[in-house]
Amino acid sequence: MSTRRILAITGGVGGAKLSLGLANILGSEELAFIVNSADDFQHLGFHVSPDIDTLVYTLSGTANAETGWGRCNESWQFMEALRELGGESWFALGDKDLAMHAERTRLLASGWTLTEVTKHLATALGIDYPIFPMCNESLRTMVETDQGMLEFQTYFVRERCEPVVRGFVYDGADQSRLNPALTTWVDEALPSGVILCPSNPYVSIEPILQVEGMRDYLVNCAAPVVAVSPVVAGRAIKGPTVKIMQELGVPGTAESVAAHYADFLDGFVLDAEDAGREHHIQALGLETAVAQTLMRSLEDRITLAGACLEFIDQLSRR
Amino acid sequence: MSTRRILAITGGVGGAKLSLGLANILGSEELAFIVNSADDFQHLGFHVSPDIDTLVYTLSGTANAETGWGRCNESWQFMEALRELGGESWFALGDKDLAMHAERTRLLASGWTLTEVTKHLATALGIDYPIFPMCNESLRTMVETDQGMLEFQTYFVRERCEPVVRGFVYDGADQSRLNPALTTWVDEALPSGVILCPSNPYVSIEPILQVEGMRDYLVNCAAPVVAVSPVVAGRAIKGPTVKIMQELGVPGTAESVAAHYADFLDGFVLDAEDAGREHHIQALGLETAVAQTLMRSLEDRITLAGACLEFIDQLSRR
Repeated sequence: MSTRRILAITGGVGGAKLSLGLANILGSEELAFIVNSADDFQHLGFHVSPDIDTLVYTLSGTANAETGWGRCNESWQFMEALRELGGESWFALGDKDLAMHAERTRLLASGWTLTEVTKHLATALGIDYPIFPMCNESLRTMVETDQGMLEFQTYFVRERCEPVVRGFVYDGADQSRLNPALTTWVDEALPSGVILCPSNPYVSIEPILQVEGMRDYLVNCAAPVVAVSPVVAGRAIKGPTVKIMQELGVPGTAESVAAHYADFLDGFVLDAEDAGREHHIQALGLETAVAQTLMRSLEDRITLAGACLEFIDQLSRR
Repeated sequence: MSTRRILAITGGVGGAKLSLGLANILGSEELAFIVNSADDFQHLGFHVSPDIDTLVYTLSGTANAETGWGRCNESWQFMEALRELGGESWFALGDKDLAMHAERTRLLASGWTLTEVTKHLATALGIDYPIFPMCNESLRTMVETDQGMLEFQTYFVRERCEPVVRGFVYDGADQSRLNPALTTWVDEALPSGVILCPSNPYVSIEPILQVEGMRDYLVNCAAPVVAVSPVVAGRAIKGPTVKIMQELGVPGTAESVAAHYADFLDGFVLDAEDAGREHHIQALGLETAVAQTLMRSLEDRITLAGACLEFIDQLSRR
């Protein structure tokens, strides 16, 4: 088999699981990541990058396996002391996790790009896979809700996704530019496949697609582009995906997700539970593959990653 | 006895010990503190106020009894994680301690003065004594050394006081203004005595004296002003006081310290070990009191505080 060059596009927890599966099969010459930075925010003076950190912690084996976010063997002394002082405590920052934010903030303030900082921090944690924030500019997901326009983390964490969503605004998208380091990697690696991990289409993947040039790249990509459904049997594997879809008047189904990406997608991986819906997706002009998309164990992650790679191989041969 | 109104002027560790002794005798109507903020610095994006925090932690019973600085029951997860990431780790920030800096930084950024922030944080830790940073402006102790001009914490912590000191510059002193909240307190309380705690004359007390109006206030103060020697038998009780004095060509003795303050001092408390030096200090025109100035136990702190208060009473009666 020829050398694989896989580009994985991912958000937070769900995406990071498949990313870990891929990293168990492919080496750092074969796999690179584009990660959402639109849920980055300034908190307590820190630049926090939740999706980047979730990916970095997951790949480095330092993630909290129970929560999916944050670090393992974490302590919460800072947070408890801050609460005592009357500080803002709605966004949980572990003591070790804080070091990541502090160092990121310091390096950004000294003029580094988010890409440079991410590479530095990932390398420090022993990761040599290229990890590209989709852009270096500040592109931020804003949530239009029945309670007004909310910053993403305010909606997601502080308000626990309770407000009813009316739409999304990707603030700064028009000023953003596809990460130049990513462009260089793509030009050199000539990806043999692109995988959209099972992340929330609106808040994890869409901001990436909003970056100037990203959607065009995928539309024109010579290699197969496949997506893994974050929706199984009308339920989100993780998080508020289906709730948001319903609030936007979109049926909470795998085929709705597929339709969202149909203009650039070649194939769609749906869960075995949704096998009966294959024809809906094929009707969109997409190839389909059926797999177990629920990833409870590391074995599950690797199996799903293998299925995605095989699907890409199949699509390449056509 | 008429109501006491004592103003204690203090730096970090040594001064905080006597401050705690005073707070064990006097209530919050009887005692206020002026604390050095000239060793404040920006570190990892935080506004760190070492002397203020040492005082606040000491008074609130949350200080680390072993080190004298930082918090008790502290953990160091942040610091260890930061070291892993290649971050700056020469200034130790405990996980709980960080909350103090983060909250201070946030409040300062939102427009609060250092005095307001200090009051807020001290209150949160259960302290109702008035604690006044000497000024709200940025007044910073810079150390002229054989290795060039160093920020105070760089000299003190990173370089472990090893560079040879040639002098001090109190950067921003000409732009500083005596803390208005302190002025108000003084006008209302009419202090019955002022105590200079046994802190380093150059790096803890002198910056306070450099604030516009502070030295004048002490020179003209109707109430007795006494100082407790930070030097015992030619040794500093804590820190580099004597090393600095010697490098500046000043004999490392109690009477050198007394001479440094002689223009506004009424009395000087020296250690029993230095009882034989009383006449040197009396020769400066100062009254003297002899006490045990080494404070190993809480009892020692209270005893020394009591001796200072009695000395002030004696001086008032003259």
